[in-house]
Amino acid sequence: MKALVFGGPGQRSWDNVDDPGIGEPTDVIVKVETTTICGTDLHILKGDVPAVTEGRILGHEAVGTVVETGAAVSSLKKGDRVLVPAITSCGRCGPCKAGMAAHCEAVGGIGWIFGHLIDGVQAEYARVPYAETSVHAVPEGIADEQVLFLADILPTGYEIGVQNGGVGPGDTVAVVGAGPVGLAAIMTGAIAGASRIIAVDLAESRLRHAEACGATHTVVAGDDAEERIAQITGGEGVDVAIEAVGIPATFDLCTRIVKAGGTVANVGGHGAPTTLHLEELWIKNITITTGLVSGSTVPTLLQLVRDGRIEAEKLGTHRFPLDDIMEAYDVFAAADENDALKVVLTA
Amino acid sequence: MKALVFGGPGQRSWDNVDDPGIGEPTDVIVKVETTTICGTDLHILKGDVPAVTEGRILGHEAVGTVVETGAAVSSLKKGDRVLVPAITSCGRCGPCKAGMAAHCEAVGGIGWIFGHLIDGVQAEYARVPYAETSVHAVPEGIADEQVLFLADILPTGYEIGVQNGGVGPGDTVAVVGAGPVGLAAIMTGAIAGASRIIAVDLAESRLRHAEACGATHTVVAGDDAEERIAQITGGEGVDVAIEAVGIPATFDLCTRIVKAGGTVANVGGHGAPTTLHLEELWIKNITITTGLVSGSTVPTLLQLVRDGRIEAEKLGTHRFPLDDIMEAYDVFAAADENDALKVVLTA
Amino acid sequence: MKALVFGGPGQRSWDNVDDPGIGEPTDVIVKVETTTICGTDLHILKGDVPAVTEGRILGHEAVGTVVETGAAVSSLKKGDRVLVPAITSCGRCGPCKAGMAAHCEAVGGIGWIFGHLIDGVQAEYARVPYAETSVHAVPEGIADEQVLFLADILPTGYEIGVQNGGVGPGDTVAVVGAGPVGLAAIMTGAIAGASRIIAVDLAESRLRHAEACGATHTVVAGDDAEERIAQITGGEGVDVAIEAVGIPATFDLCTRIVKAGGTVANVGGHGAPTTLHLEELWIKNITITTGLVSGSTVPTLLQLVRDGRIEAEKLGTHRFPLDDIMEAYDVFAAADENDALKVVLTA
Amino acid sequence: MKALVFGGPGQRSWDNVDDPGIGEPTDVIVKVETTTICGTDLHILKGDVPAVTEGRILGHEAVGTVVETGAAVSSLKKGDRVLVPAITSCGRCGPCKAGMAAHCEAVGGIGWIFGHLIDGVQAEYARVPYAETSVHAVPEGIADEQVLFLADILPTGYEIGVQNGGVGPGDTVAVVGAGPVGLAAIMTGAIAGASRIIAVDLAESRLRHAEACGATHTVVAGDDAEERIAQITGGEGVDVAIEAVGIPATFDLCTRIVKAGGTVANVGGHGAPTTLHLEELWIKNITITTGLVSGSTVPTLLQLVRDGRIEAEKLGTHRFPLDDIMEAYDVFAAADENDALKVVLTA
Repeated sequence: MKALVFGGPGQRSWDNVDDPGIGEPTDVIVKVETTTICGTDLHILKGDVPAVTEGRILGHEAVGTVVETGAAVSSLKKGDRVLVPAITSCGRCGPCKAGMAAHCEAVGGIGWIFGHLIDGVQAEYARVPYAETSVHAVPEGIADEQVLFLADILPTGYEIGVQNGGVGPGDTVAVVGAGPVGLAAIMTGAIAGASRIIAVDLAESRLRHAEACGATHTVVAGDDAEERIAQITGGEGVDVAIEAVGIPATFDLCTRIVKAGGTVANVGGHGAPTTLHLEELWIKNITITTGLVSGSTVPTLLQLVRDGRIEAEKLGTHRFPLDDIMEAYDVFAAADENDALKVVLTA
Repeated sequence: MKALVFGGPGQRSWDNVDDPGIGEPTDVIVKVETTTICGTDLHILKGDVPAVTEGRILGHEAVGTVVETGAAVSSLKKGDRVLVPAITSCGRCGPCKAGMAAHCEAVGGIGWIFGHLIDGVQAEYARVPYAETSVHAVPEGIADEQVLFLADILPTGYEIGVQNGGVGPGDTVAVVGAGPVGLAAIMTGAIAGASRIIAVDLAESRLRHAEACGATHTVVAGDDAEERIAQITGGEGVDVAIEAVGIPATFDLCTRIVKAGGTVANVGGHGAPTTLHLEELWIKNITITTGLVSGSTVPTLLQLVRDGRIEAEKLGTHRFPLDDIMEAYDVFAAADENDALKVVLTA
Repeated sequence: MKALVFGGPGQRSWDNVDDPGIGEPTDVIVKVETTTICGTDLHILKGDVPAVTEGRILGHEAVGTVVETGAAVSSLKKGDRVLVPAITSCGRCGPCKAGMAAHCEAVGGIGWIFGHLIDGVQAEYARVPYAETSVHAVPEGIADEQVLFLADILPTGYEIGVQNGGVGPGDTVAVVGAGPVGLAAIMTGAIAGASRIIAVDLAESRLRHAEACGATHTVVAGDDAEERIAQITGGEGVDVAIEAVGIPATFDLCTRIVKAGGTVANVGGHGAPTTLHLEELWIKNITITTGLVSGSTVPTLLQLVRDGRIEAEKLGTHRFPLDDIMEAYDVFAAADENDALKVVLTA
Repeated sequence: MKALVFGGPGQRSWDNVDDPGIGEPTDVIVKVETTTICGTDLHILKGDVPAVTEGRILGHEAVGTVVETGAAVSSLKKGDRVLVPAITSCGRCGPCKAGMAAHCEAVGGIGWIFGHLIDGVQAEYARVPYAETSVHAVPEGIADEQVLFLADILPTGYEIGVQNGGVGPGDTVAVVGAGPVGLAAIMTGAIAGASRIIAVDLAESRLRHAEACGATHTVVAGDDAEERIAQITGGEGVDVAIEAVGIPATFDLCTRIVKAGGTVANVGGHGAPTTLHLEELWIKNITITTGLVSGSTVPTLLQLVRDGRIEAEKLGTHRFPLDDIMEAYDVFAAADENDALKVVLTA
């Protein structure tokens, strides 16, 4: 089959490789019908994720059809259309039972293994371990593209941004960073009842996307962002500040705009430590949360898609045949100049 | 001043009465600018609420302006525009501190005293006890009618229906009874993220209102209602069933349509006991809640109105000058034939 | 092997039967080392549970050792010492993922299948389906008897009584019915921080056990129980009333002694409907919960046993060799005259 | 009357000053019968709290008797025995209604005003503003000393440590810093059901107090503390780490010992920023909380004292007549050499 193979830093190719086969009785093989590229894939290509070795097939978001099932698989069968999420869940370890597959012990303490520790889903076929506890049936009548982004960015924005932030009816929420995950937080924050959603980003184009996803206010990132947010909130600050960038400056901004009693929900992946101003924050009754997505809310998100409450496909701005994935990578790597959010690759 | 005076069962009049004055240092006097009539007022007129004595001014929902303040009042001043809610809260007893002013001990264990145990707000002026812990400032730029129904039916639907029911993103909710309070539950259930809202009522006209308030499905009450709901939910039942009628048949329906793990939130006021089928329900992992509104969510609802997320004024179908309140009572008492939800009375 | 076989109403025998074998790749076979008898087994023997057919091996609580594993089992191996709980969990259906294995869809919508829909554990060996998602490792250094009752009554009392009731620090809790499950609610209610625990029962002997388990007050069931509880609580009522009997009178008592804002947690299995006084309760802001245990708290309870915070073995009042199970049934069936709580059967 | 007066950095005196009088109709005057000294008072004396001006009477923890009431006070009367807590709550602002009097707007956004922005309670009499929403009746039969520490350190440890940390049954909790507030967290953490409580401190004497308060393990602070905690927890880390010191090193330790999914509850008051290792923590699904006490749990703590579940008086190690407060300050300022926790001053 064909697959997108990592060849070391800076190297990727659309190669012929062996078809995957059932390895464990809990595996299934899925024919990939739709997949996408994640910012994490770009990090891997930069060499930032040393655990990814040469020869690894990338990709951790897919919709497809089951074509083969392991001996222990009873609730999935050939022909089932499934969403293959970024996170693998054994369903039996402590973290999985607690709904925190992000730290599944059976796969090494981190549930993200596709395109990382095992071969991924930017390929014609993929082996899916612990399939029964990991994949989700796609509701009838729903197109691949409507649920594709529920593999990673929607639950990331919802679980790590909106749920960890405790967003509820009437809240004022700031989402700092309006990339795909920030937009997912905006979309799902609106569903959770946020009354005002302030999107903050450097790029005007992303702020326009933010408005399309439900932001009620936009603020161009910069020195006066804090002051602008203070104006919008009448000096009160926000109930929830969602950090969706991953650098010290944006995290720090979040801690300055959150009101007493509020929450900073960190979604961004950070590469460096930050300074936490505990001399100001210790007295302020705030909460700071961090986390990797677990996917525990995918069933809920599927219902919201089924019922037309979430239009996740909006986040797909560019479409390619799967065979053109090399070009899709180029477009996605230059997301800003192409005004790209997510690419959709269809087999 | 003029006021709507209860004269015993079946008797009401728009009478000249003495102006109210400050009684306690925590009182304020409010000039009533907008008020409405509640189904409870009709019950009182039928003689169903014996605690209401002859001569009592009725009404427990108003928007107005503070015209006089007691000696201990520091956070309200003459000229402040306020929402006077149905529930009085002393702010210092155990229930009030716990956010459950419904059972305020300072006013006798039940927070509803306006037009019940003290004179109410269907009048030109009203004395408002424990004003600082009870009333809410109306946000600038918001019309009386936009917030009037936050005095009672909106927080009733939200607190006792939606919050007690634990409605959250993706939920399937049935609201049994699409009168004003049921419609308030539908409106606020949508805000809380419900994915499907099934309205059940006998009257087609109310089901149309339900759709306008956010219901996604409607079911005509009757013998096949349970089956229709089963069809809509694929046989699963609903996550939350909100009872907004107050009779055994509708409560029982709620217990039959709720899924394992779900909640029946009773909002309706009941006059008779019901049969609870514990022989079926004991094993079903369900929750049943009851309650009188406390108004703890009024600040949240005011934010939602301010930000345009709730259009509470939709529930006002008929408008009258306050002086025509006798006619307004006639219209409201025949709500079905007039397709009336709530009347708005303006001074 | 030998097993306790149901022979139809009134009939049981300690028989020679075939050894169980692996049926599905997710099964394990456990050598039973310690087991017990449940009140439910007595109900079955009375013919009250028609789903139990002649020839069925009874029992749903055991500690034992894995002697054989199915092909898909990777996290359990021969020689592992495990607690086999009453509830089977597939780990992959909606209810199981939500922590509500009580309604596991893979085993028919009710997670209790041992000694009910499949052969149980009052036997020398037992087949355990969905083993990896159902059984729990016994901590080192902990005796069988210390964890045996975590198979059913401890999590039942804790999940369905204490957790559903929302028991927390400082609460006043009434536990109506001081049989084994009521005592488990008392033990775990104390752990959850209850300040006062009022045990209510007809039998003085059970009230003594209740005190030994942590009850701070005891009330003999009867006409004046409501008044006695009112005295103890200074007229306020209890925060949480846990029903652990299963008849209308005790359920009704619970609804009368609970304070506004409180919870009635029903644990008892009911055979008949009851009258719910909604005409009084609708305004009272109470919560009523029901449920079958799911076992989601067994890991927590195992930690509490490991750390010496729970002495579950106290509930075992009589000990027998497994071969004497027929006699053990006789003793347990006459629990009151023998002052028996639970019997412990050891292979 | 006599009062402990701040005279600028390093200066304190037991002086004759004017008796306080009713200033607002919501005030009461309390005759102080028992009071204590807080570490914060020592900070003030060092000049670390510039808002405290010369001439200010210090102290914010007292038990006493109401001797005079303002015109608006109806629920308190002369002769009532009350606990005067550290935090003043107006009961009517947004934060107070939300149970977060720590940020009461009526008193300037920070609820701690006694001995800070207004005269305090280390005096024979004290004016208590917003008395009805701030003070608590002392249960009959309970001595002053049993509830004195509920004025500040018990609710601080419970609300900011145990509740913010989400401590529940079965949890493993580390309390870093075994001073009075850390000990309060240990005491109340045990009530909340913690299974293992690991106390960390430099001083062996404090670790002994920790054991007396309920710690199950002790670790001497130092380079190997992290490793020791790892050993105790079998490498897993703790569910909740409570920081009760207020310096970067101890905060950092907490972030290293907390497990995925766990919480760091910061209680210590910090004077400097710290480095937050987001490059490691962003993926770890942890929560960090901060806060000043609000006192919302004082009613709960009073119940636990009344029922003998908390023995708060254990934290009082030294007793003095109020007239000897100058000497009591000397002893408390040299707490380590005197093995002092809290001093009790009795009028």
